[in-house]
Amino acid sequence: MNDPWLDTLVTATPQEGFELAVLLSRRAVRYTQPDLSILKKLRPEYADSADGLTAASQVVAINFQTVAAANNYWRP
Amino acid sequence: MNDPWLDTLVTATPQEGFELAVLLSRRAVRYTQPDLSILKKLRPEYADSADGLTAASQVVAINFQTVAAANNYWRP
Amino acid sequence: MNDPWLDTLVTATPQEGFELAVLLSRRAVRYTQPDLSILKKLRPEYADSADGLTAASQVVAINFQTVAAANNYWRP
Amino acid sequence: MNDPWLDTLVTATPQEGFELAVLLSRRAVRYTQPDLSILKKLRPEYADSADGLTAASQVVAINFQTVAAANNYWRP
Amino acid sequence: MNDPWLDTLVTATPQEGFELAVLLSRRAVRYTQPDLSILKKLRPEYADSADGLTAASQVVAINFQTVAAANNYWRP
Amino acid sequence: MNDPWLDTLVTATPQEGFELAVLLSRRAVRYTQPDLSILKKLRPEYADSADGLTAASQVVAINFQTVAAANNYWRP
Repeated sequence: MNDPWLDTLVTATPQEGFELAVLLSRRAVRYTQPDLSILKKLRPEYADSADGLTAASQVVAINFQTVAAANNYWRP
Repeated sequence: MNDPWLDTLVTATPQEGFELAVLLSRRAVRYTQPDLSILKKLRPEYADSADGLTAASQVVAINFQTVAAANNYWRP
Repeated sequence: MNDPWLDTLVTATPQEGFELAVLLSRRAVRYTQPDLSILKKLRPEYADSADGLTAASQVVAINFQTVAAANNYWRP
Repeated sequence: MNDPWLDTLVTATPQEGFELAVLLSRRAVRYTQPDLSILKKLRPEYADSADGLTAASQVVAINFQTVAAANNYWRP
Repeated sequence: MNDPWLDTLVTATPQEGFELAVLLSRRAVRYTQPDLSILKKLRPEYADSADGLTAASQVVAINFQTVAAANNYWRP
Repeated sequence: MNDPWLDTLVTATPQEGFELAVLLSRRAVRYTQPDLSILKKLRPEYADSADGLTAASQVVAINFQTVAAANNYWRP
C-alpha cells in the first residue's frame, strides 16, 4: 500500500478535482481492507443499495471539500 | 463518465449554487454506480424513505459548503 | 423547483441564519422528492423518531456552518 | 418557534461556547418537532442508547465548530 | 454539569489536542445523558461494536478539526 | 495510551498526510477501546462489510481535511 498514488492535490479543472475526491474515497477503503477480492465481493452491497450509494456520495463530498480548498476553488 | 460536466464552481446566485450542490451529490453516486437502470430501480429506496431523504439532504449540505465558499458566499 | 427561493445567505441575526439553515435542509429534501404528498406521509417516520430527529438536526448544523460563515458569524 | 432564543454566537469562554453548541443541537430538533410531549416521550430512545448518544455528540461537535470559529477559538 | 471543565482549546502538542478532542466527544455525551450509571451500562454497546467505535472515531475527528484550527495546527 | 504517537501534523507529501489521517482514525478507536484483542476480534465486522468500510473511509476523509489544512494543502 506504500506504492506512490498521491503526488498532489492540485488539478487543472474542478471535474478532475472531483474525480480525485472519488479516488481518495476509494483509497481510504483499501487502507482498511487491502484484499481486492473481498472488495470486489462487497461491491453489490453498496453499489446496488440506495443507502450505500448515498454514504459513498457523502465521503466524496467531504474529500471534494479538501481538494477544492487546495485548488482555491479553481477561481478564475 | 469522463464527459465534461463540471466546468466551474462559480454561480450567479446562491440558488444556482444550491442546485449545483444537488448535481454534485448525484454525480458522486454515478461515479460509484454508472448503470442508470440500477439507479432508477433504487430511487424509491431513498426518495420514499425519511432516512434516505435526510441522508441525501446531508450530502447536499456538505457540497453546498464547498460551492458557497467558492463563491465567497455571494456576499454583496 | 426552479421558482426563486434563495436570494442571499445574509441575515440580520444569528437566529434568522439558523432558520435559513432549517430552510436549506428542507429544500434539499424537496429537490430529491418534489411530491409534497409523499413528504407529508413520511413526516412521522422522522419527526416521531429519535434517530430521525438527530439526523435532521445534523443537517441543520452543517447548513448553519455555511450560513454563519457567510455572515462572518454576525460578529459585533 | 419565533420567540427570540439566539442573539449572538459570541461567548465568554470555550465551555459556554460548548454549551451553546448543545443548545443549537436541541433547538434544531425542536424546529422539526415542536411538540414537547413527543420529544419527552422519545428521550429514552437516544439518551439510553449508545448509538443515539454518539449521534447527538456528533451534532454538538459540528455546532461547536461554528461557535468556536465565531469566537476565534477564544485564543488568548 | 456547570462545573468548569474547558478553559482553553490551546494545547502544547498535537497529541494533547487529540486527547482534548476525545474529551470533548465524551463531554457532549454527558450533556445529553448525565447519569453516569447509564453511561457505564451502555459502554459495551459501542466499545465492543465495530460500528459504534467507528462512529465514536468520527466524532473525535470532527472535534479534532476544531482543536487543530484553534492551535493553528501546531505549525512550527 | 499516553505514550507519544503524534508529534506533528506536518508531512512531506500528500500521501504521507493521507496515511497520517488513517492513523488518526485508528488511534481514535483505541482511545475508546484500548483492548487490542477486542479490536482484533471486531475487525471482520467492518473490514468485511461495505457499510463498515464506507464509514471508515468517511472518518479518514474528515481527518485528511485537518492534515491537509495543516500542510497548506502541500501547495507548490
